[in-house]
Amino acid sequence: MSSKRIGRDTVRFTHPPTILSFAASGGKMEAEGPLSRYFDLLETDSFRGEKTWEAAETAMQIQTMEAALKKGRLAFESLSLVFGGDLLNQCTATSFAMRHWGLPFCGVYNACASISESLILAAMSVDGGFASCTAAIASSHYCTAERQYRTPMPYGNQRAPTAQWTATACGCCILGTGSSGPRITHAVPGRIVDPGITDVNNMGAAMAPAAHSTISAYFRDTGETPEDFDLILTGDLGKFGHQLLQELFQRDGVDMGKNYFDCGMLLYDIERQDMHCGGSGAGCSASVLGGYLLRNLTSGKWRRILFAPTGALLSPTSVFQGETIPGICHAVVIESGKEARE
Amino acid sequence: MSSKRIGRDTVRFTHPPTILSFAASGGKMEAEGPLSRYFDLLETDSFRGEKTWEAAETAMQIQTMEAALKKGRLAFESLSLVFGGDLLNQCTATSFAMRHWGLPFCGVYNACASISESLILAAMSVDGGFASCTAAIASSHYCTAERQYRTPMPYGNQRAPTAQWTATACGCCILGTGSSGPRITHAVPGRIVDPGITDVNNMGAAMAPAAHSTISAYFRDTGETPEDFDLILTGDLGKFGHQLLQELFQRDGVDMGKNYFDCGMLLYDIERQDMHCGGSGAGCSASVLGGYLLRNLTSGKWRRILFAPTGALLSPTSVFQGETIPGICHAVVIESGKEARE
Repeated sequence: MSSKRIGRDTVRFTHPPTILSFAASGGKMEAEGPLSRYFDLLETDSFRGEKTWEAAETAMQIQTMEAALKKGRLAFESLSLVFGGDLLNQCTATSFAMRHWGLPFCGVYNACASISESLILAAMSVDGGFASCTAAIASSHYCTAERQYRTPMPYGNQRAPTAQWTATACGCCILGTGSSGPRITHAVPGRIVDPGITDVNNMGAAMAPAAHSTISAYFRDTGETPEDFDLILTGDLGKFGHQLLQELFQRDGVDMGKNYFDCGMLLYDIERQDMHCGGSGAGCSASVLGGYLLRNLTSGKWRRILFAPTGALLSPTSVFQGETIPGICHAVVIESGKEARE
Repeated sequence: MSSKRIGRDTVRFTHPPTILSFAASGGKMEAEGPLSRYFDLLETDSFRGEKTWEAAETAMQIQTMEAALKKGRLAFESLSLVFGGDLLNQCTATSFAMRHWGLPFCGVYNACASISESLILAAMSVDGGFASCTAAIASSHYCTAERQYRTPMPYGNQRAPTAQWTATACGCCILGTGSSGPRITHAVPGRIVDPGITDVNNMGAAMAPAAHSTISAYFRDTGETPEDFDLILTGDLGKFGHQLLQELFQRDGVDMGKNYFDCGMLLYDIERQDMHCGGSGAGCSASVLGGYLLRNLTSGKWRRILFAPTGALLSPTSVFQGETIPGICHAVVIESGKEARE
């Protein structure tokens, strides 16, 4: 009955859902980064006119979904199901944003892999005939994440060399059954892999084995190789995790090639912006997707990409209790529906 | 293309997934409650032999899923997708449990409606052909929830008269395409409704309007009434929310009737166990489902039930920041596949 499976882990959509519209929002650092021109909204005030950073993150989600709806000339009532998540305790940034819309809502949480989890569920809902139009959204905010996972901003804590920078960003995709636009053709819901890392400043090492597990599963199930993609993009492994993932594949005799990048390395000019290992946060890969990736897929720069955001499933409590950091990676294949230009 | 929709909000499964197996776990209070004989596992040690309550909640999830697999004579590898959630920050009880299994995992968060969100997504995955066998799981633990949402246990805080008691409990359902067993025929993914309540000790009032919204949507979309069910069960509105929901329906001219109950009122003997307004927590409705409800559906006591857990989408931070409490309710219709005995 699981007629849409290939191999053990890969889902192949029989009516690949179309990405009808998309949008990305960012903050000050994202505005100063190399992808700034791909954002729909850039706001340098970290409060966005709200009283708290948490309310600012909610406002960012609302604005990003509004932008995606507007670009797609869609009314919000056309959405029959929304999947979304964030990094806040009890995922309140997303819940409060969805309160604004009053749309049917399923909250997801897989840390920085929340955007790909949301995309997979949104795509299943459309392909399965459960919803005609769905949205996937995820966000993070530097100031809310620092308060929650590390120390409040005013402490002025030093960052470790392997630390990453939580993006103040949001990405939203609207999926449906339209005939033109990029399509989600395959999905790989990930398995948790825990390499035993306890250093919260080394998320790349904690998540790279999960990325290896999910991407390997796709290659195994389909018989494809890295060369079948114009671009392979992990979520936010950062510089160190990006290197580690290449090494893990080298051990398998697989060369990830020159088309493999990491969202955490693309979002910022790491050296110039002093980002240590790069960007992270649920909004990092979500906004790279909702801006840079989908604009270039739409324009035909790439024909086929593998988008594989990664999440570190820790909490401050689990870290205090001496637990290791489990990683997860959910992947989707997106095709432009056009011939590649390069 | 949304061929499985009726009306605006209701999903009708074309190949209603079968609940192949199920299990419920509880703690000391659940063991002393009126539903104790319906639990598969009851453990009076709140630590369950672990060093922390958080690890105890993870252990409870692992044991509950093991029990469900064993009862269904299923190997864990037969599960191709698991949906689950809990109330801990960053949903770590579930993530750490799923680390144990290494199964494809989508974390969900809609507070105490997490079990019905998980069930809906698990059912969509099976009906849509994306997975042949899935699991839905949710848990809560009195001691982890008190530490996180209110004050650490050793404070010995007094409870308000409208307060509810977070269940130390877990429920798990395994869904597939088998020919015998209860089936999930319909689902209603809920919309967030925020009645403006700020009192964290009055969750019933915060969530009742969401239950009203979701259950009304089902009645509107299908033309059915409360009389079409042998049992209607909300999640954990408690005594006060249960009363409030009946009043909300009375205003619409709908009598919820004598078959409407609330999981938070069934799990405990409220007066004898001094539970104030009743039980709550993601594990409350999950364990009532995984024990009392599914055993009685399997035995043929009821033919058709509407299971509508509710969630309060707050966090301690949102409460400190003066935010109101948004509510959500996801509902599923479960049929026994047998004629009712009473």
